[in-house]
Amino acid sequence: MDRRSFNRRLLAGGAVAATGVTSLSVAGAAAPTAVAADTPPKTAPAGGKVRRMSLFAEKLPNGQLGYGLERGKATIPGPLIELNEGDTLHIDFENTTDVDVSLHPHGVDYDIANDGTRMNKSHVEPGGTRTYTWRTHAPGTRADGTWQPGSAGYWHYHDHVVGTDHGTGGIAKGLYGPVVVRRKGDILPDKQFTIVFNDMRINNKPAAESPNFEATVGDRIEIIMITHGELYHTFHIHGHRWADNRTGLLTGADDPSRVIDNKITGPADSFGFQFIAGERGGAGAWMYHCHVQSHSDMGMAGLLLIAKPDGTIPGYDPGHGHTMHSGSAGSSGGAAAPSASSGMDHAGH
Amino acid sequence: MDRRSFNRRLLAGGAVAATGVTSLSVAGAAAPTAVAADTPPKTAPAGGKVRRMSLFAEKLPNGQLGYGLERGKATIPGPLIELNEGDTLHIDFENTTDVDVSLHPHGVDYDIANDGTRMNKSHVEPGGTRTYTWRTHAPGTRADGTWQPGSAGYWHYHDHVVGTDHGTGGIAKGLYGPVVVRRKGDILPDKQFTIVFNDMRINNKPAAESPNFEATVGDRIEIIMITHGELYHTFHIHGHRWADNRTGLLTGADDPSRVIDNKITGPADSFGFQFIAGERGGAGAWMYHCHVQSHSDMGMAGLLLIAKPDGTIPGYDPGHGHTMHSGSAGSSGGAAAPSASSGMDHAGH
Amino acid sequence: MDRRSFNRRLLAGGAVAATGVTSLSVAGAAAPTAVAADTPPKTAPAGGKVRRMSLFAEKLPNGQLGYGLERGKATIPGPLIELNEGDTLHIDFENTTDVDVSLHPHGVDYDIANDGTRMNKSHVEPGGTRTYTWRTHAPGTRADGTWQPGSAGYWHYHDHVVGTDHGTGGIAKGLYGPVVVRRKGDILPDKQFTIVFNDMRINNKPAAESPNFEATVGDRIEIIMITHGELYHTFHIHGHRWADNRTGLLTGADDPSRVIDNKITGPADSFGFQFIAGERGGAGAWMYHCHVQSHSDMGMAGLLLIAKPDGTIPGYDPGHGHTMHSGSAGSSGGAAAPSASSGMDHAGH
Repeated sequence: MDRRSFNRRLLAGGAVAATGVTSLSVAGAAAPTAVAADTPPKTAPAGGKVRRMSLFAEKLPNGQLGYGLERGKATIPGPLIELNEGDTLHIDFENTTDVDVSLHPHGVDYDIANDGTRMNKSHVEPGGTRTYTWRTHAPGTRADGTWQPGSAGYWHYHDHVVGTDHGTGGIAKGLYGPVVVRRKGDILPDKQFTIVFNDMRINNKPAAESPNFEATVGDRIEIIMITHGELYHTFHIHGHRWADNRTGLLTGADDPSRVIDNKITGPADSFGFQFIAGERGGAGAWMYHCHVQSHSDMGMAGLLLIAKPDGTIPGYDPGHGHTMHSGSAGSSGGAAAPSASSGMDHAGH
Repeated sequence: MDRRSFNRRLLAGGAVAATGVTSLSVAGAAAPTAVAADTPPKTAPAGGKVRRMSLFAEKLPNGQLGYGLERGKATIPGPLIELNEGDTLHIDFENTTDVDVSLHPHGVDYDIANDGTRMNKSHVEPGGTRTYTWRTHAPGTRADGTWQPGSAGYWHYHDHVVGTDHGTGGIAKGLYGPVVVRRKGDILPDKQFTIVFNDMRINNKPAAESPNFEATVGDRIEIIMITHGELYHTFHIHGHRWADNRTGLLTGADDPSRVIDNKITGPADSFGFQFIAGERGGAGAWMYHCHVQSHSDMGMAGLLLIAKPDGTIPGYDPGHGHTMHSGSAGSSGGAAAPSASSGMDHAGH
Repeated sequence: MDRRSFNRRLLAGGAVAATGVTSLSVAGAAAPTAVAADTPPKTAPAGGKVRRMSLFAEKLPNGQLGYGLERGKATIPGPLIELNEGDTLHIDFENTTDVDVSLHPHGVDYDIANDGTRMNKSHVEPGGTRTYTWRTHAPGTRADGTWQPGSAGYWHYHDHVVGTDHGTGGIAKGLYGPVVVRRKGDILPDKQFTIVFNDMRINNKPAAESPNFEATVGDRIEIIMITHGELYHTFHIHGHRWADNRTGLLTGADDPSRVIDNKITGPADSFGFQFIAGERGGAGAWMYHCHVQSHSDMGMAGLLLIAKPDGTIPGYDPGHGHTMHSGSAGSSGGAAAPSASSGMDHAGH
């Protein structure tokens, strides 16, 4: 059984991962198969399902706040929400904190009652509940003959009311998470890592504990990169590149998009991409970091730990490897992260 | 008569809008028609006309400076100048202020005598006049077989000499405006809104008076977004998205451009896009704002007020609606903004 | 003989240019010919060669550091390294300074032993040597049917260990340079200029000495633009534009890329583009500058001096022309810059 199917079974069974997170199941997904060099990768199906999930805003230790799929399971970033174009998602939201909290999405379709702003009275009081509804749609031609883009993209959600009417306090404390909307035929990854540059922290971790991510050569990795806060950053990965377009993958020889390994980004920007771990560079402890020099020097850097199939990482000494992370606790693995995938189906929830 | 044709007639007749602005006529434009769901939108014609307009640099109250189409009618931003690829524009410029002023364009074709810089002696002394000539061209193949891009784009103009040799003082005080160059076949909007992030101000308005913009569900809105000054920003609109390419509209299913609702931008960057007001989200008071958290908290936010056909806006209370704008004066409507469109024809000027 | 062939011959002969730079030869290049209006430009050949070059890290006067192709010939930026997709480059690197130095590339393929980081023990001690190997590849279809992008792009290299483990000191002092990887069929330029915004300096020059660049109307100019340090910038050129895609050239009428003349950029971002000098604007002293107002005011501005075929530049007075550069030393010409082109072939090295 490959790593992906192993992780998925673990998750489907509701097992508690090392980080204490229980995920929504991926019961609706087809049986996973190995991503071999000569096997076409799995792709996203057409959407159109109506889904339902729970989301809790919660207090975390040390004054942070987080979103979680179950009570007591909030994480930073919040759970990854994956949809296929055409899906509708009802989010039964409960605010277990002692301040007003909301849920404001980027990218998806929503009416003004689901805006998540105080102005539009779409926030939730302490102890209160509210169902937020997000919709998505496939691209197509309008009745007037013009082209309407679809919802597919690497998006995100965040609080819009804690601290200020723009959610500055909520975002600072951790109330944010990733959203991926896929188009029918979009290639599915083996592993997904969410990286949020929130001012000088990555995923709200102190500099000395910036997250590392683990993969094996050949894994199809998906990065969802989000920025929050005050500062601009440049996101850089060593040894790997991506296309600066919707999917991060070129559509073919005619796609004029720039291929990059470094990208300027500011608050609420988001983008994503896939790459094959170690393709043309092999296994290793590959840095990812903000390339603003003082930011990386102060700890905005982590590792993409790409192992050989035998599990070894050439040249990597976890005890002394990354000078900036001598106390780093290691990986927050992709498939082991909380996830509310498009396969979820909690009809009775 | 739909709102667009109403506004156009108002303008064609030279009526003075609430903001005190008289526009150049759009006499050359075809009779406006309703943009119905099943009627193809109007598109830009081929260019090739030689046009002429007047532009005045003027002092405004409270120490600001502006460009205007007539004496005493300067506005911030200055008038929208629209051209079709192939058009030539002669601008009879008069500096009514007591300092040197210039006109420096982005995007269009001009020779060094029309650069608007002190170095190239293309500025205008107090009380002086100068005719600036801008040219545009359609794309095509050069004699050597290579492809030459056309002039189409969302561009802008600004002073380059007030305060410093880079126009830092002129730009700070309001000497800037939008330029749109269209390609034959480009879709024409119903309403146009220019949004300039000039350091911590939007269109040089104090934070408490950030402009709101009014539209009706179904209107094809065009945003022209320009940044000036010192600071970087991220431009975000609630409930609507655009493509990160030349037009802000996807060319079709094969266009790999990212669809976004948030974009990092720095001084002198400009971009534009169109969207259908309320498409898939309906009527409402939709915020637009800089997503740098301290910027929005300090007032870099306004409203896109999208009304139902009956004129109502669900959930919107103008008196208490937008907590950041309690004293806001409301809309600076699109078609009511000063405009020197490609239809203008002041042959005898 | 046109200017390009003149310069190439000068370089091929190893002549020392005014700036004291000797270039690697371009012996492998086909005989240069005039780029006439009706002659298709030369294009890049297929790659696949194994190349070898020397690179020295050296101390420069006034505390700066640089990379050079020969001992005592270090420059800032370091030599331009040009490859064609499929080429492999072995760089025999020698550190003549008294601190650890490394070479970290962006964009090309390399294994972890060639990462140039301290963590991966791929730096070089004072007096030490190391051979770094970079590989490149053409785009194509993987065995699994997905599309793999090629290496082509405007990339760069820099130190990753001087001062901090992110090379902050090395980059600040000048240890950086440009890399261009071309695809078979990519159009070759007549002249190449590298512009690096390294905090408030251009190519590490003091503000009063920002580099100017010289060309003649009709030259096909290539700009390689790199940013380093702490600050974000916006890069602007007067009178010329480019496409915001891989090559900076539109692929044709269907390319949806935005054409721009101003672009926000942050540390380690890089992009490049070509344009025809003076096309549609003619000869002149055209400014290029950072458009962040305080940056240009403090001297982040230089000139693109585009002469008529007779050598004159209308309106340009070198003695009094550019108020920000009254003491400027003038051009650092493109083809005269140090270059390790794809044509080099030091098999016996």
